Amino acid sequence: MREVYLDHGASTPLRSEVVEAMIPFLKEQFGNPLSLHRFGDAPRQAVEEAREKVAALIGARSNEIYFTASGSEANNMAVKGIAFMNRKRGNHIVISAIEHHSVMNAAQTMEKLGFEVTRVPVDSHGLVDPDDVAGALRDDTILVSIMHASSEIGTIQPVAEIAPLVRDKSKAHFHTDAVASAGTVPVNVKELGVDLLSLAGNQFYGPKGAAALYIKRATRIMPLIDGGIQEAGRRAGTENVPAIVGLGVAAELAVEDLEERRQHLIPLRDRLIERLTKEIDRVHLTGHASQRLPGHVSVVVEFIEGEAMLLLLNMQGVAASSGSTCTSRALKASHVLTAIGIEPGLANGSLLLTLGRENTMEDVDYLMEVFPPIVDRLRQMSPLYKEA
Amino acid sequence: MREVYLDHGASTPLRSEVVEAMIPFLKEQFGNPLSLHRFGDAPRQAVEEAREKVAALIGARSNEIYFTASGSEANNMAVKGIAFMNRKRGNHIVISAIEHHSVMNAAQTMEKLGFEVTRVPVDSHGLVDPDDVAGALRDDTILVSIMHASSEIGTIQPVAEIAPLVRDKSKAHFHTDAVASAGTVPVNVKELGVDLLSLAGNQFYGPKGAAALYIKRATRIMPLIDGGIQEAGRRAGTENVPAIVGLGVAAELAVEDLEERRQHLIPLRDRLIERLTKEIDRVHLTGHASQRLPGHVSVVVEFIEGEAMLLLLNMQGVAASSGSTCTSRALKASHVLTAIGIEPGLANGSLLLTLGRENTMEDVDYLMEVFPPIVDRLRQMSPLYKEA
Repeated sequence: MREVYLDHGASTPLRSEVVEAMIPFLKEQFGNPLSLHRFGDAPRQAVEEAREKVAALIGARSNEIYFTASGSEANNMAVKGIAFMNRKRGNHIVISAIEHHSVMNAAQTMEKLGFEVTRVPVDSHGLVDPDDVAGALRDDTILVSIMHASSEIGTIQPVAEIAPLVRDKSKAHFHTDAVASAGTVPVNVKELGVDLLSLAGNQFYGPKGAAALYIKRATRIMPLIDGGIQEAGRRAGTENVPAIVGLGVAAELAVEDLEERRQHLIPLRDRLIERLTKEIDRVHLTGHASQRLPGHVSVVVEFIEGEAMLLLLNMQGVAASSGSTCTSRALKASHVLTAIGIEPGLANGSLLLTLGRENTMEDVDYLMEVFPPIVDRLRQMSPLYKEA
Repeated sequence: MREVYLDHGASTPLRSEVVEAMIPFLKEQFGNPLSLHRFGDAPRQAVEEAREKVAALIGARSNEIYFTASGSEANNMAVKGIAFMNRKRGNHIVISAIEHHSVMNAAQTMEKLGFEVTRVPVDSHGLVDPDDVAGALRDDTILVSIMHASSEIGTIQPVAEIAPLVRDKSKAHFHTDAVASAGTVPVNVKELGVDLLSLAGNQFYGPKGAAALYIKRATRIMPLIDGGIQEAGRRAGTENVPAIVGLGVAAELAVEDLEERRQHLIPLRDRLIERLTKEIDRVHLTGHASQRLPGHVSVVVEFIEGEAMLLLLNMQGVAASSGSTCTSRALKASHVLTAIGIEPGLANGSLLLTLGRENTMEDVDYLMEVFPPIVDRLRQMSPLYKEA
């Protein structure tokens, strides 16, 4: 049976160059980068080279890059670290209604600890209106966190338009969660105008266990993980050298390939969206049609339950997702789909197909061969469909 | 030139079995454990097997094991998570004066955020007196964190004697940092009587990037990293599957080899301590002579500066450390050596030699061949030594 992996948003396969670069650091180069002897030398140098490569991916200086173990950790570090550090200046945080759980729940934790959170709505395409962000700003706003792109609906936010408003109308720091976009579309911290930005290696053919938070020079932040002097004292814990090295190589490859990747993915994405919405009755695109991640296809299928679709697709060799992987097994209605106005019954039929560099037009055709019969079969079992 | 690695406390080489088990999860098994398709199956199963192996190492249930990316993260999660969760019941935290920076600085952060911290002293061997802990307990004490063993001076604390006092005389949760001891000496959460315990794979021939926090069933804690439903909703972020698998294998090997490791290390340690303190003038053991980690040698050398010793040892192929690796490059006086009553000038001459499974009596002899001339040479340059 054909195997078609359409879940790159959940995790990407590692590039072979990434794995090859990591392996020496699992074997002979096992030393601690902080060690004052030769076993520390190569690991320390490798971590600093990776830092330069990640900085180059997003137009930052290398000393503005702080390694973390996941995008979620980077997001928590940004939200909690900025809030706690500025607690004497204010206690108001602004986020969008469709942030990833690691921003949304971090903000909710800060709410429990005495901060106040405003959630800016999005339109039916999942877009934040910059004026809504500006309108939410107050004298005591210390942090604005608006994602760069949504892993669930693919919409890319107008971060570069929001940033000057935040800068001009408040003293808040501006963070963007670019975990879904960095390495896939151009992301430049200066062009975006952000103070903090999160990214994660396993979104662009790097390993799990390595991610980064960009913190603009002179930005003060309270560590999430206190302890030793790693990461300039801002994130303690022995550096995960092999994973950091892998992230560096993945960042370097992303810089080289970014345009090629987009050119490869966009036609696949557009073809898949067109065929899904035209050839199958009552299938609707979620998110924005054009301001959208290049490999990202998200739809809702009426009268069908997402998990059943995934299981039947899996039986045909197709790996897909329904909403956020981080919460898929919780089977809760997606806050993102709710925010764009999709009613809970329909949100249950969410299907997320995220394409990657190894996918081809044949994969799209294969999906369109196996998926319509699955929809038919499941709809035959739906009393609501028969009524309609 | 002979290469002798005597810095296992900074990081251990990975067992080949560990690396072999990890590699498939860097290659074909790249899926996200939460995925509802076949690419998630093997990673998910592997993570749960690793959880069982880590649980077996410390006598816990597998659903009491929460993976983190480092021992420092586990310590921060314990200290901050218990403090924040219990903030309405009390705001008093008790730690020892010689905790690792990741406990000490986490407690200090909580102090900044309105908690109160009592630091229990230690004696000249680095031992906490259980009665001192009992004496520090108050009605509003919510957390006691006393390390199991010190990575800096090797002393093993009477945790099993402290636990019943904490349980009987307070409503506090009891955490122990067993990062330096788990996998090296027997560590059993029931025998120790703790509610939370931290351990890290790179201390016992596992990889960097995987560690764990044991949280006793029914213990409530606030996540350090909010977000998705990974780790039962207590620690968000895509699981670092390869590193977790490696940690699991390392734990399994530690269970098998623990007694053999101790039997191998203790004679090397004792011989090294004996020769260092007898054959070189004015060298003093730090920490406890017998209640001590099996591969742990720590001394202070009068009239000498630690970094110079390390550099000259490195030139002879010997990898060693001076105090805590996590802060070695900060060149601050060690709070641990200060706490056991060593005056700052002498603390500068700290030398830490941590033995591992590949070390031999020949390594000990080699050290004792190259080290005395280094001491002589450095002392010849010391005006204080000439005066004395």
